[in-house]
Amino acid sequence: MARDERGVTPQSEDFSAWYNELVAKAQLVDRGPAKGTMIIRPYGYRLWELLQAELDRRIKDTGHENAYFPLLIPESYLRREAEHVEGFSPELAVVTHAGGKELDEPLVVRPTSETIIGEMMAKWISSHRDLPLLLNQWANVVRWELRPRMFLRTTEFLWQEGHTAHADEADAMRETMLALDIYAEVARDIAAIPVVPGEKTPGERFAGAVRTFTIEGMMRDGKALQAGTSHYMGTNFAKAFEIQYTSEAGRLELCHTTSWGMSTRMLGGVIMTHGDDKGLVLPPMLAPHQVVIVPIGRGEQGEHTLSAARELAGRLKAAGVRAHVDDRAQLSPGFRFNDWELRGVPVRLELGPRDLESGTAVMVKRLGEEGKQPVPLASVPELMPGVLADFQAFLLERATAFRDSHTSRTDTWEAFSQAVATGWASALHCGEAACEDEIKAKTAATPRCIPLDGEPESGSCVHCGAPAAYGKRVLFGRAY
Amino acid sequence: MARDERGVTPQSEDFSAWYNELVAKAQLVDRGPAKGTMIIRPYGYRLWELLQAELDRRIKDTGHENAYFPLLIPESYLRREAEHVEGFSPELAVVTHAGGKELDEPLVVRPTSETIIGEMMAKWISSHRDLPLLLNQWANVVRWELRPRMFLRTTEFLWQEGHTAHADEADAMRETMLALDIYAEVARDIAAIPVVPGEKTPGERFAGAVRTFTIEGMMRDGKALQAGTSHYMGTNFAKAFEIQYTSEAGRLELCHTTSWGMSTRMLGGVIMTHGDDKGLVLPPMLAPHQVVIVPIGRGEQGEHTLSAARELAGRLKAAGVRAHVDDRAQLSPGFRFNDWELRGVPVRLELGPRDLESGTAVMVKRLGEEGKQPVPLASVPELMPGVLADFQAFLLERATAFRDSHTSRTDTWEAFSQAVATGWASALHCGEAACEDEIKAKTAATPRCIPLDGEPESGSCVHCGAPAAYGKRVLFGRAY
Ligand SMILES: [Zn+2]
Ligand SMILES: [Zn+2]
Repeated sequence: MARDERGVTPQSEDFSAWYNELVAKAQLVDRGPAKGTMIIRPYGYRLWELLQAELDRRIKDTGHENAYFPLLIPESYLRREAEHVEGFSPELAVVTHAGGKELDEPLVVRPTSETIIGEMMAKWISSHRDLPLLLNQWANVVRWELRPRMFLRTTEFLWQEGHTAHADEADAMRETMLALDIYAEVARDIAAIPVVPGEKTPGERFAGAVRTFTIEGMMRDGKALQAGTSHYMGTNFAKAFEIQYTSEAGRLELCHTTSWGMSTRMLGGVIMTHGDDKGLVLPPMLAPHQVVIVPIGRGEQGEHTLSAARELAGRLKAAGVRAHVDDRAQLSPGFRFNDWELRGVPVRLELGPRDLESGTAVMVKRLGEEGKQPVPLASVPELMPGVLADFQAFLLERATAFRDSHTSRTDTWEAFSQAVATGWASALHCGEAACEDEIKAKTAATPRCIPLDGEPESGSCVHCGAPAAYGKRVLFGRAY
Repeated sequence: MARDERGVTPQSEDFSAWYNELVAKAQLVDRGPAKGTMIIRPYGYRLWELLQAELDRRIKDTGHENAYFPLLIPESYLRREAEHVEGFSPELAVVTHAGGKELDEPLVVRPTSETIIGEMMAKWISSHRDLPLLLNQWANVVRWELRPRMFLRTTEFLWQEGHTAHADEADAMRETMLALDIYAEVARDIAAIPVVPGEKTPGERFAGAVRTFTIEGMMRDGKALQAGTSHYMGTNFAKAFEIQYTSEAGRLELCHTTSWGMSTRMLGGVIMTHGDDKGLVLPPMLAPHQVVIVPIGRGEQGEHTLSAARELAGRLKAAGVRAHVDDRAQLSPGFRFNDWELRGVPVRLELGPRDLESGTAVMVKRLGEEGKQPVPLASVPELMPGVLADFQAFLLERATAFRDSHTSRTDTWEAFSQAVATGWASALHCGEAACEDEIKAKTAATPRCIPLDGEPESGSCVHCGAPAAYGKRVLFGRAY
């Protein structure tokens, strides 16, 4: 394979082509045969496993328990909550035949599990002592996609969905915000994405929710990606599924429920937050290989550098670093360097015969100003955790600077439309759905969220001039 | 709830009723709404997660990489391998409608992923350098079940499926046996099930396989459970999906493939290998709670024992022990003791006011002759890992003794039929499918496997008297 076949269209030239080519060439995913489905290849799946482990630990540490609910749900279940069925109907995949026969009642492949979990919560909860009930599930879900995009919108995707039941609104809202906090922390500390946590406007709420919260990340094309959502359902699902409990006072009460999810979509966010013209840039916390060692040289010299590379990898692993040796001697060093740059490995160590003689390796970071630096082989394992932590911090700072320089406080329509053409606009809005729709028709921008940390402010709508709602600014942007 | 409502039908009275009641009362599972589906509750799912972690680690340590392939597979894929489609046709669930329309080609909900993975292997493999390709997937699969049984046969189940491609038969057979070894090790060392590894007779092979290997465990009713299988596919799938590579000599060759799976069925095996009239008995390696501490006493005394229990649980956790405090003060100590016995917790620590005064707890193991033993609170964390390891070893020894005492070498039809009424028969067999069928019709027993470690032996078939096949004895038993 020639070098140019491996490269990707520059990000600045065509962001969308860059993304589509990159996810395939970096061997993250491949297209599945059924419309909009995705095959997650080992390199992409390892990213997911590393994210999953971080998220799962936090979910368990906060008292939630994992469980598993069936993939196939009777169609009638979805109909019980009116808004929910309306929201999902056009996206459903339906099993009509099984075991060689037509089914009496079609089964829906779960697009999400609120309904079946609601049904079981009703069975499991009877007393206030059963509350809160804190469940989480890791699962695949199916939503038919007309315009699929790997990781971002696929017919099938992997996710976790938290579902909890509480005695009252206050407890359910605490839970809703706790889940949002976990998402924001994982996005920031693990994926190095400086997300903005906030509430969705009524028009952007989840089907059946009373309040929807989100974390929004800014991609390098200035668009927003919703990377996780947390919903307070009020008593809507409790009413539909009769999720009730007897209070300490002996009264029968409806539960207040929540649900929250983060999915493989997050990996699309990682790619679009950090990647550049050369390819992926992976945060060390998620990189399948944090360090790749490339031994150089032919014949006997190649054998020496390869065995030194393996020895070094062993010491790095013992130091808790995910190290990989690229032993593809049939490929040129230059090809291999480019390949690992494309695949986003944070740190590359080049190990040639002369390096080996002088007891050093050449360290090259995937981003930064330092260029090639010699490092003593003996101290690499001791040094590397710090190098990786610095690189992780650098990515978060870089993404934060990018987000901040592409976000404008706008008080005029002209400033607003300019801002959302390349980034986000922070603006006052009247809160009317019709006004949101007009803004979307004119600029393609939608309200991403009402940031939690926004300052109280009043005034008039940036678009229609009517009095502003929400008591603070709304963040607008074009979105994935 | 009264005590008798919590108890289960004795195992000796009605094994099947015992099992069905136990899985529900121990809160492992609940029935799903769609036929044969299963809801895995937190206590059951934790068992699965612990098994999964042990298996996943071994799969990764032997060079396999996890990936994820789509749930929905075009119907035409299954038709490409004749035996495969024949084997699965009656069990398929089929999506005919999606996105509000009828699909041009129906999509099958995967019953296993050989076909779609075969299709992708063909795309990814071109040179001998791409081999072996060692993939594994953790996924849900659907096979329509007419006689569902929780964990053992459910319409949807969770499993891992390994799929690998190799340059030749020798390498593929090494892989097939490696996977079988991993399964046998996990069964024995983690689930404390002394399985017999062996090969299936031709009539019991997987649809499309050239050779099928299995691990068979003996349940406490004398029946066999197939707890994991490993298949050598020869070049059958390689032919059907054109999985080919260019050899070092430059020739185009077909790959030899394997597949192997272990599922949530294994949890049914754990329950039926170790459980007794009182309920579950869980091997410490898989127990969600290895130790449950039950604080006793009312009012102020209850507060003291509760806080001492929590302090002890903290020290146990620090020592790597999964400890749980039962703080349900509203329930009597006796009720709680019975509850944890039903749920199979290996070790219970009772902590009453008088125990606390004397600086001890009362230790009760779920099985064994020791009865109640006082143990000094200070040394419990130091002591416990050894107690749990001993209990784990005790369960394996007990199950091995049970299996051996319920397995007979039989050389006459009378001895054979008696043996398979209560256990297994080791017998010579002619290898004819018709003879297998007659044996099954008369006794309900089937050939479970030709044990790998069987001694060479020749002679005549225990049923029909024809010359024996396989060169060694076959293990027969009734099976789940
Ligand atoms: Zn307006
Ligand atoms: Zn015979």
